[in-house]
Amino acid sequence: MEWSKAQRYLPYDQWSAAELLKLQAQATNSPYQLQYHIRPQSGLLNDPNGFCYFNGKYHVFYQSFPFGAVHGLKSWMHEASSDLVHWENLGLAILPDGKYDSHGAYSGSAIAIDDKLFLMYTGNHRDQNWQRTAYQLGAWMDKQNQITKVDQPLFKNDQAVTEHFRDPQILHQNGRYYAIIGAQDAQTKAGEILVYESLDLSSWQKVGRLNLDPLGYMIECPNLVYVDGRPVLFFCPQGLDKKQVHYDNIYPNMYLVLDEIDLATATVKVSQPLRQLDFGFDVYASQAFNQGTDCYLISWAGLPDITYPTDSENWANCLSQVKELHLKDNQLIQKPAKAMKSLRQNGEVFKDQTSLFKQTDNQYELSLTIDKNQLASLELAKDSTSSLKVKFDTINGKLTLTRDQGAFAQKYGLNRAVNLEANSDIKVDIFVDHSLIEIFVNGGQAVLTSRFFNLGTGIEFLAPCKYQATYWPIVK
Amino acid sequence: MEWSKAQRYLPYDQWSAAELLKLQAQATNSPYQLQYHIRPQSGLLNDPNGFCYFNGKYHVFYQSFPFGAVHGLKSWMHEASSDLVHWENLGLAILPDGKYDSHGAYSGSAIAIDDKLFLMYTGNHRDQNWQRTAYQLGAWMDKQNQITKVDQPLFKNDQAVTEHFRDPQILHQNGRYYAIIGAQDAQTKAGEILVYESLDLSSWQKVGRLNLDPLGYMIECPNLVYVDGRPVLFFCPQGLDKKQVHYDNIYPNMYLVLDEIDLATATVKVSQPLRQLDFGFDVYASQAFNQGTDCYLISWAGLPDITYPTDSENWANCLSQVKELHLKDNQLIQKPAKAMKSLRQNGEVFKDQTSLFKQTDNQYELSLTIDKNQLASLELAKDSTSSLKVKFDTINGKLTLTRDQGAFAQKYGLNRAVNLEANSDIKVDIFVDHSLIEIFVNGGQAVLTSRFFNLGTGIEFLAPCKYQATYWPIVK
Repeated sequence: MEWSKAQRYLPYDQWSAAELLKLQAQATNSPYQLQYHIRPQSGLLNDPNGFCYFNGKYHVFYQSFPFGAVHGLKSWMHEASSDLVHWENLGLAILPDGKYDSHGAYSGSAIAIDDKLFLMYTGNHRDQNWQRTAYQLGAWMDKQNQITKVDQPLFKNDQAVTEHFRDPQILHQNGRYYAIIGAQDAQTKAGEILVYESLDLSSWQKVGRLNLDPLGYMIECPNLVYVDGRPVLFFCPQGLDKKQVHYDNIYPNMYLVLDEIDLATATVKVSQPLRQLDFGFDVYASQAFNQGTDCYLISWAGLPDITYPTDSENWANCLSQVKELHLKDNQLIQKPAKAMKSLRQNGEVFKDQTSLFKQTDNQYELSLTIDKNQLASLELAKDSTSSLKVKFDTINGKLTLTRDQGAFAQKYGLNRAVNLEANSDIKVDIFVDHSLIEIFVNGGQAVLTSRFFNLGTGIEFLAPCKYQATYWPIVK
Repeated sequence: MEWSKAQRYLPYDQWSAAELLKLQAQATNSPYQLQYHIRPQSGLLNDPNGFCYFNGKYHVFYQSFPFGAVHGLKSWMHEASSDLVHWENLGLAILPDGKYDSHGAYSGSAIAIDDKLFLMYTGNHRDQNWQRTAYQLGAWMDKQNQITKVDQPLFKNDQAVTEHFRDPQILHQNGRYYAIIGAQDAQTKAGEILVYESLDLSSWQKVGRLNLDPLGYMIECPNLVYVDGRPVLFFCPQGLDKKQVHYDNIYPNMYLVLDEIDLATATVKVSQPLRQLDFGFDVYASQAFNQGTDCYLISWAGLPDITYPTDSENWANCLSQVKELHLKDNQLIQKPAKAMKSLRQNGEVFKDQTSLFKQTDNQYELSLTIDKNQLASLELAKDSTSSLKVKFDTINGKLTLTRDQGAFAQKYGLNRAVNLEANSDIKVDIFVDHSLIEIFVNGGQAVLTSRFFNLGTGIEFLAPCKYQATYWPIVK
């Protein structure tokens, strides 16, 4: 189905409930559907939004176009959890039905203020000539999860930026509210992160532009958190020069460990290099938040401008599992949220068996140590014609994920790799959820998050090797 | 909101998706919402349909009107489970969009045939003069849960019955398919159960009318199963004379333990009296099925023609938990499905403490033994102004449930009681799920299923008494 602009931006009250019920059932019954990750109730999911702790629960919202696998008129859908693992879908949270978000309730963030949650997001508005204005908007959610939009925009894009001005993260520091916002400079057309401040959430002033080196043509989803006390900035610099940092995906999701940041003057001090957040095929728009000194991260397991095989089933994408963040040697360590272990069913131990041959339901965790000085190749979701391959080179220190089925995002390569210490064991914790694989390498030193679309159910080493493994079926 | 006939029967493609999304969020966010029972995704739920085991899972469908808390244009919604406890909503299954189910895809049943599931249900059709024809319809569900309706009706009501001719249960016995159907005799206007037979599912012949005593003016939801090898017939005889069996609810849900039944001749042999299935305020349209010699039952925890407090929140009703059925002394024993125990979190033991005072989240199981020769009164969901009361009279042998809040179904009384052995301990297993209580008495000898709408969270005995209790929070 080709989607016209009119179809993509049709108001939700002009879609029929019969169509929506059909799409919800279609997504739910897909053999590729995720069973222990946040997934769209129907249609397309993209960025996580408003990830926070409020009213005794964790909350995360996601960008949703409920009517198909395209980037149409976006709303916020709401999920809540007590443990960052068992999420419940609470339904539509922000409908794009206002004057200022008429063409999409785009991404944003949340902050608990007294007994309410303040949501700050970008309202996408287009006029009759399809000229866009990017409004930064507010909304309040009460303890019954009822949301009331703030009547007037908080502020909009000024002359210094193009229409690309979105994804506010709201923070509270030293008695002031700050918003950091992704933008494109009107003069240079370079990507930048802007800082705004407010004392009362209604009157906002521009502080300035963070003093970062040039970063592509647009920065999406800037996100500042404190990991083990150190400021860390996540963002998605579209068009980033690959000479700055190597990446394979269409758009990268990067992070910078900062020495210092001062939002009051929009200045950072940086001595660490820009680094890739995830080494897999499908991570973007990651959002983290601090709960006290703890820091949690969640990502869109998908990318803009990529078509996925489930597009033909009228749904697309999912969120990653939540990770706990730490720093080691100035680099991120990402670990599964603690409650992930509560999903494990009876474990089964394998050791140095010829093949570790196992039939699964593609819903499991596999913890695996490959002894040093080997070339080992593990096939997952294997049937007689295809599989997803993880290659372990413990001589040179390299892990490679190979996704080879069908005509699916092939333009950006069939392999993703991460370099590790040579002549060492490689330890991985692999989570498979039907069409998503998340590989935590060496205790979270690297993560590879990828969608895949093989329906085979086998696990098998291509050839004998020395390893220890524990396999757990996962049930949510 | 007053619902006009036109609004109640508006086709699903004329409702807007925005309205449906709003209703889904409203139901999900209700403080009364069920957390470990099957509940409507939006709007009104009533009868369970097509309860069965197929393709490695248990399935149950429910009657749904997704657009409000009224009995409007009904569809089938689909739920599946591996253990009869963890149910997953799979979305809309049968849309009332055909010529023969234009005014509702009404209740029915399911039978696995080869690698497909055959669904048999009543199509409600009304003509321009609002004259109803009740068609018995078929549909096939494949292993991907895709449903295809049979083009033509299997059969419709003949002259011998009024328009009240519905709720087919399909069975396979001795090489033939049988359907037992609730009906109203055209001459006598008495309730009856009709038997039809077919060799091929497409050509159906009427066998006759089961030789039961007169039972009110209409029998809904007839359902034949074999419990410990013995035929048991469940049904809902509307207008049943209370001299035949005492009941308090607007309509009763009864059962008959049969000596024999022969569908080929539509004859039963009965020596046992008609008995009430459940002693609570809210059970109707129960449906059971056999998996081998095991027998499982599920019920609508609600009643026709009753308004509930959540009507103002635009949703209503839920299904009961699944019960395992056995017979003892010619009476049903109903036990929670085995996997219910898997929901228990860390247990807490109480014994003869003054009050058993406990604050809860109204999502728990409480196992309780009240010693003999006492009058004890337990309050649940208690706050400073109201509570749900369970009174134990272990002198005379009586358990009474009192629901006293607000103006809610008061016409049918504030108490429900069950008589038990005098001078004996009473042992109960109580399940509370926000707005539903299910009390299993003396190992399932009696069950009381009731909705209640107190939001208090306390448990407390009104006065000291002798008891032992274990309390488990429940998490699905």
